[in-house]
Amino acid sequence: MRIQTLYLLPLIILLSSCSKEVDLNAASNETDNKNYNWRLVTAWPKNYPGLGMAPERIAKLVEEMSNGQMKITVYGAGEQVPAFGVFDAVSNGSHQMGHSGGYFWKGKAPAAQFFTGVPFGLTADEINAWTNRGGGIELWREVYEPFNIYPIPAGNTGTQMFGWFNKEINSLDDVKGLKMRIPGIGGEVLKRAGGIPVTLPGGELFTALQTGVIDATEWVGPYNDLTFGFQQVAKYYYYPGWHEPGSMLELLINKDEWDALPKHLQVIIDTAAKAVNQDILDEYTAKNNKALRELVDVHGVELRKLPDDVIAEFKVISNQILEENAAKDELVNKVYQSYKQFKEEVSAYHKVSEDSFVEARNN
Amino acid sequence: MRIQTLYLLPLIILLSSCSKEVDLNAASNETDNKNYNWRLVTAWPKNYPGLGMAPERIAKLVEEMSNGQMKITVYGAGEQVPAFGVFDAVSNGSHQMGHSGGYFWKGKAPAAQFFTGVPFGLTADEINAWTNRGGGIELWREVYEPFNIYPIPAGNTGTQMFGWFNKEINSLDDVKGLKMRIPGIGGEVLKRAGGIPVTLPGGELFTALQTGVIDATEWVGPYNDLTFGFQQVAKYYYYPGWHEPGSMLELLINKDEWDALPKHLQVIIDTAAKAVNQDILDEYTAKNNKALRELVDVHGVELRKLPDDVIAEFKVISNQILEENAAKDELVNKVYQSYKQFKEEVSAYHKVSEDSFVEARNN
Repeated sequence: MRIQTLYLLPLIILLSSCSKEVDLNAASNETDNKNYNWRLVTAWPKNYPGLGMAPERIAKLVEEMSNGQMKITVYGAGEQVPAFGVFDAVSNGSHQMGHSGGYFWKGKAPAAQFFTGVPFGLTADEINAWTNRGGGIELWREVYEPFNIYPIPAGNTGTQMFGWFNKEINSLDDVKGLKMRIPGIGGEVLKRAGGIPVTLPGGELFTALQTGVIDATEWVGPYNDLTFGFQQVAKYYYYPGWHEPGSMLELLINKDEWDALPKHLQVIIDTAAKAVNQDILDEYTAKNNKALRELVDVHGVELRKLPDDVIAEFKVISNQILEENAAKDELVNKVYQSYKQFKEEVSAYHKVSEDSFVEARNN
Repeated sequence: MRIQTLYLLPLIILLSSCSKEVDLNAASNETDNKNYNWRLVTAWPKNYPGLGMAPERIAKLVEEMSNGQMKITVYGAGEQVPAFGVFDAVSNGSHQMGHSGGYFWKGKAPAAQFFTGVPFGLTADEINAWTNRGGGIELWREVYEPFNIYPIPAGNTGTQMFGWFNKEINSLDDVKGLKMRIPGIGGEVLKRAGGIPVTLPGGELFTALQTGVIDATEWVGPYNDLTFGFQQVAKYYYYPGWHEPGSMLELLINKDEWDALPKHLQVIIDTAAKAVNQDILDEYTAKNNKALRELVDVHGVELRKLPDDVIAEFKVISNQILEENAAKDELVNKVYQSYKQFKEEVSAYHKVSEDSFVEARNN
């Protein structure tokens, strides 16, 4: 027994010093120290500028901040699931994470559109404020809860352009019969105004414009549009982007996987997504400048503003559609009322603050 | 020798298993595992809404994301150093961190003002884009390098109000002799327009307005101004806040301390500050709505817009002062040229994107 005790002595000493080592790592339990290798599927081509860089940057920040404890591998659209399969993949847990835009899922969750943006709705700053400090995030989590998905805002394109046209829009008559690629509520508005909304994936738009299959298309804004080369096959670049005033992107997380994470990794993911939410808007804001100058100065693109009466009619129709949709679905109505009230208040406030300043600066 | 070897066996086994335990914590070396207890001094009262909550939230996020490895204790102005002692405290290393506004340090680093904001300059989104994706952050680090300080953007008030007045401003004549609390370049503009800029700390403004020591004061915006009770002692609330279009706050870090941090803690601090940068703007955007309504609807405050000719003259003078300051100092000129070019491009772009959209939405 004596020899055995002697044998055990260094064991006891080392176990005690060993646990001290672990404490220095500030880890409180087994779960805290487990390594995580997660897969993230996106609705964008791999490394697509702006949109597609959001999940890449979130993955990098999470790995760095967790000191390698959590690694996230990002897959472009079609690599593991198709672009429009992202929501289901995260919902059923085949993938822990996704990156996309809420308005893609309007067929499953009609209220999801408000968390990307709706025609004549909130700008980037305003949707951030509504989501993070105005009750929006709580509603969003309620909307995605039945799908076992936990959403976090993760990027914003800023106000988009209305898009590329091969027909002039001088009056409401010119909208009639116009074949335009425009998804979501924007497409419904065009239809009710007499146009023909078309659904096409981004990669087919160039050829469709070139061959006259469509008369017009919306995409994002100068930075993304320039890379697609639309300036080669369309004459007019119309603004404002009444249909997408500040589209917010989303990080989707399987709720079971999220709940099982140690707290520090939850905060790391949430904070990384918030930082990237602004970073993507910063990137669009900085790059759109230069891209628009190149489109106009180098490629001779003709910038056109939609006539006031066309915009006014689109606004009337947009509000009709939003009201009709809200009347049909209790949860849509709940989200719509919150969004609408915030919009009324924030736009009143911005009239005396930022809008009034910008007018004074630019005059 | 034989017994000694037997003795050492468990030691060897345990050392090897012990280092595996440490690996599970994803820590790569001794520095990575060290605990950090840092002190952060601020230019704001402890827990002051908006401004003062930025460092509190950064501290909380850093502690949570590092799983307790880094703790930051936040001190309000005057608790350890006075409000205007923050820069020196971080520079000389008596405190590792500070939170303030760059324009406070114009006496030491005249170029610092651009990283908060200048009259008729960039809005919140625009200064974020310039700083993070337009070359601003590199210039800012160059400006603070001689002071051994590493700056990170950390909060934004959005466009402020021009402020509280007991005299009507109907023309440039009304500006002559006006005693107004307004710091920085805004104060220089007022002086050149014939007014009398006054320097007073926030806590003395209420009494100074009440007793007529000053005719007017600027502060921040409805959310902060309401808590100070200015509505009780001033008649008119003027806009737009031409002097502070989107004031960015700063997290200051002693450069030696920053350089000595392990990479994962650097990324944690940087990301926390970026997330809080947006969060503070979200808070102001959401809360200013309600506060302005309360000021107008409950307290009967009279909202007034500055006359166009007064704004136009302030703009002319502002640009004169900015040009004169740039001519006097090489580094100021370098920062000014970058800021000015970005402003020209981004304001041209925003005219066809967000500004044009907001006009269409609000009409």
